[in-house]
Amino acid sequence: MKLARFRAADGVIGHGVVRESELCEIAGDVLGDRRETGRRIPLRSVRLLAPIVPSNILCFGKNYRAHAEEGGSDVPKAPLMFMKATSCVIAPGEPIVIPRVAPAQVDYEAELAVVIGKPARHVSEADALDFVLGYTCANDVSARDCQASDGQWSRAKSFDTFCPLGPWIETDADPANLHVQGRLNDKVMQDANTSLMIFSVRHLVSYLSRGMTLLPGTVLLTGTPAGCAFAQTPPAWLTPGDVYEVRIDGVGTLRNPLIQEAAS
Amino acid sequence: MKLARFRAADGVIGHGVVRESELCEIAGDVLGDRRETGRRIPLRSVRLLAPIVPSNILCFGKNYRAHAEEGGSDVPKAPLMFMKATSCVIAPGEPIVIPRVAPAQVDYEAELAVVIGKPARHVSEADALDFVLGYTCANDVSARDCQASDGQWSRAKSFDTFCPLGPWIETDADPANLHVQGRLNDKVMQDANTSLMIFSVRHLVSYLSRGMTLLPGTVLLTGTPAGCAFAQTPPAWLTPGDVYEVRIDGVGTLRNPLIQEAAS
Repeated sequence: MKLARFRAADGVIGHGVVRESELCEIAGDVLGDRRETGRRIPLRSVRLLAPIVPSNILCFGKNYRAHAEEGGSDVPKAPLMFMKATSCVIAPGEPIVIPRVAPAQVDYEAELAVVIGKPARHVSEADALDFVLGYTCANDVSARDCQASDGQWSRAKSFDTFCPLGPWIETDADPANLHVQGRLNDKVMQDANTSLMIFSVRHLVSYLSRGMTLLPGTVLLTGTPAGCAFAQTPPAWLTPGDVYEVRIDGVGTLRNPLIQEAAS
Repeated sequence: MKLARFRAADGVIGHGVVRESELCEIAGDVLGDRRETGRRIPLRSVRLLAPIVPSNILCFGKNYRAHAEEGGSDVPKAPLMFMKATSCVIAPGEPIVIPRVAPAQVDYEAELAVVIGKPARHVSEADALDFVLGYTCANDVSARDCQASDGQWSRAKSFDTFCPLGPWIETDADPANLHVQGRLNDKVMQDANTSLMIFSVRHLVSYLSRGMTLLPGTVLLTGTPAGCAFAQTPPAWLTPGDVYEVRIDGVGTLRNPLIQEAAS
């Protein structure tokens, strides 16, 4: 099932299940009790929004060996968590804005995003997926110059618009076997399978839940495959006019153009 | 004005203005239009909650010279931001739970917390305080072993209960001149004035707002003075039975006992 969040032509925000070219409207809580109202809306008549308003965005660094290596890092011995601010989430199709304060080294990171559906605390790997509502695509946009100068990564990854999410939450997918691609202006830059993750989705959920409660609406970004802009010769930094696309087979496609922040 | 959030004897959560030993109930949005209902509630009949449910918790490291030095660090050239998960916020008086996964090196950090009241983007230092609702006390509890092994600080600082906040939001304070103390079992461990911050509250708000929108309800933790547990000889790691108190003159006192997480 594909759970979408949308803004209808009349401006009202709703939720629905995507079935072919239609949205079947949902009432209730997308994270809890929900039911279809029977109303059907043409998909082309709405604007899809980020499918969830995250309570927290918990991210993992260096979770694919080839990406850790392209960054000159050792493979981590345990999941390496960092955070993005929830204020930087944008919708499918919405522009990623290259910030005036950090325009030079804006990079892309195609990632599988996991949406937590039920409070998870001290969850085993065996049970971990019972706490997951579903999966969507994310782009963990990063200003590499700020990331390097700060050392802590949150600011460099929390500039406004730096977390495209969508197009919807796919509830029926095997997170251990999904083909993930990142395409810059239709050229494949990142190409991997989630089976290559160093720490599986089951492990990531279980690991974090031993110390913290993963609240409903928590979004986990599970790390990016190799092929980032910084690792190209010359670096393929994002510039205005570019389009970056995150494709996850069986989940969906998330496409966002790049624009420059306007002068003040 | 002291804005409090509380759970009344009947279990209902409300907001009020603290006046001596009473709460004057508020209706409406504490971050927007609010008015007093005229109902007065004895302060001792309610349980104070964390005064805000943060949208994001944005923290600053090494913002007092003596604390940077006790950690063997250089003083940062720009504000050093990291994040805590909003899931770890607790109320005044609520126990800080030493997690089973990281019991050995739990440390305290007394801090001035800033609560953003209006969306702040591209705000000047001169205007920065216009976007602040007020100030409260925070304890940026940190598992130093995890902080060191991860390198990124968010996990070590986001274990459940690791962000006591309170007792209320004081709207009338000068953030550039507040006396901050941290007391472990009544012994003064941290003692400084916010005038000693490397980057002032005005600067922190303005700096972040150049790249990201500070949403209403965003909480900024502005860094901790010297005197942390790790810097004592021997280290004064928090243990069950301890009580840590954050006192900020003109703002309030935040006191939390320590307990051990129960065995599974």
